[in-house]
Amino acid sequence: MKALDIVILGSGNLAQQLLSAFAKNKASNVLQIYSRNESEGHELAKSFGIDYTPFVDEIKNADLYLLAVSDNAIAQVSHQLMFKDRLVAHCSGSTPMEVLAPGNRKGVFYPLQTFTKGVSMDFKNIPMCLESESAGDYLILEFAAKCISDKVLAIDSNKRSKLHLIAVFVNNFTNHMFSIGNRLSNEFELDFDIFHPLIEQTANKIKSVEPLYAQTGPAARGDINTMEKHYSLITDDQIKKLYSSISNSILNFESEKF
Amino acid sequence: MKALDIVILGSGNLAQQLLSAFAKNKASNVLQIYSRNESEGHELAKSFGIDYTPFVDEIKNADLYLLAVSDNAIAQVSHQLMFKDRLVAHCSGSTPMEVLAPGNRKGVFYPLQTFTKGVSMDFKNIPMCLESESAGDYLILEFAAKCISDKVLAIDSNKRSKLHLIAVFVNNFTNHMFSIGNRLSNEFELDFDIFHPLIEQTANKIKSVEPLYAQTGPAARGDINTMEKHYSLITDDQIKKLYSSISNSILNFESEKF
Repeated sequence: MKALDIVILGSGNLAQQLLSAFAKNKASNVLQIYSRNESEGHELAKSFGIDYTPFVDEIKNADLYLLAVSDNAIAQVSHQLMFKDRLVAHCSGSTPMEVLAPGNRKGVFYPLQTFTKGVSMDFKNIPMCLESESAGDYLILEFAAKCISDKVLAIDSNKRSKLHLIAVFVNNFTNHMFSIGNRLSNEFELDFDIFHPLIEQTANKIKSVEPLYAQTGPAARGDINTMEKHYSLITDDQIKKLYSSISNSILNFESEKF
Repeated sequence: MKALDIVILGSGNLAQQLLSAFAKNKASNVLQIYSRNESEGHELAKSFGIDYTPFVDEIKNADLYLLAVSDNAIAQVSHQLMFKDRLVAHCSGSTPMEVLAPGNRKGVFYPLQTFTKGVSMDFKNIPMCLESESAGDYLILEFAAKCISDKVLAIDSNKRSKLHLIAVFVNNFTNHMFSIGNRLSNEFELDFDIFHPLIEQTANKIKSVEPLYAQTGPAARGDINTMEKHYSLITDDQIKKLYSSISNSILNFESEKF
């Protein structure tokens, strides 16, 4: 069987991650990178030994076009494409499939993961959330997804926005808790690195214990004294408010536990 | 040199974790477990082949007594001890050293970590936060801590409560974000397990990127449309409020970034 031909539109962090993931698999073949960022696009294509173009009329024929651009550029870039009736999929968790330009076949190819620039991720365990207009196109997306991951899920736009909401809590909001911890560490002259093992274990724990039952701390045990002491140690009003509202939410969850 | 003799007061999760950590090292010697919970205490002592007593007047002579009991039992248990002038240290992040009963020498031996029942932890990377009344006693605590961990810190009660406040954000509040994610997954009929790789990576990311600069998501990029959509998907009022207040806090942090 011939390898699946893919063109990646974009040259940022996600484009790089997808490229290195597909490069490990022979059933897929990334033909070309298209990006208006000439230096970044050229550099990236060169490092993988593949073709690069900054011109929309030079984009090659492929089975699948992956739009690895920022959310707010998806509609715009998809409208600039000059070909018709080809499968164009975006990679965003929060963008409906419908924003893609008409004229081409629409799809979504969303890896449920957070990527760090320069840190190449192993896609094997990353859930690939797919959506298409037709069953035939789903097979193409599925084939591509299985080239890089063992976890492939059909998720429509409605369900994907729910999934993305949950990702905001477990990823974005969790990271903000780390930001607050880091800021307080600076204020209190503590080295934030000493919290790394605790953070790692907090994330690991919920693989074996349901989060509600992994909950510990002053709010979970209704320890008002400690909460008042903590409150008095916080100088920033916004962080004070968050301390109270998250503690209250934990108390509520605890009271509904049994 | 003779091994450091330790008695562990308590038989719960932390007592078990400390026992298995000390058991790996020959420079320390846990002589005995004291616990009023006879079945648990007896079972634990037996599994490590050491002495057990439920009687306070049968507690053996040792260099160090570690109070591995719940925070609200620390003062009480320390007052029940019948010996005098020995070194008694509690293991709590949020409890001042002063709550320990007078008559014995006071200390704190606080492992900055969250423990899961039945999952034996490697203490090597766990920061051990120590406090004592005298320099001599600090040496004893330090010797014991170094038997199990490579990271030993002198942290007084004032600093420890600040450290504990930060631990609440990065551990307890983070875990609550997971609880909310789990609850929403149930409501939306999504399998919470698919978020595990994302959660793991969120925790890993901040080892190489400062949390403020690892921040992504709709709030960080000021994407009002997505935030409004998410808000409308949440049915629970308390979770709605948290979504808003944490998003606002992220926006504030972003605005102070440069």
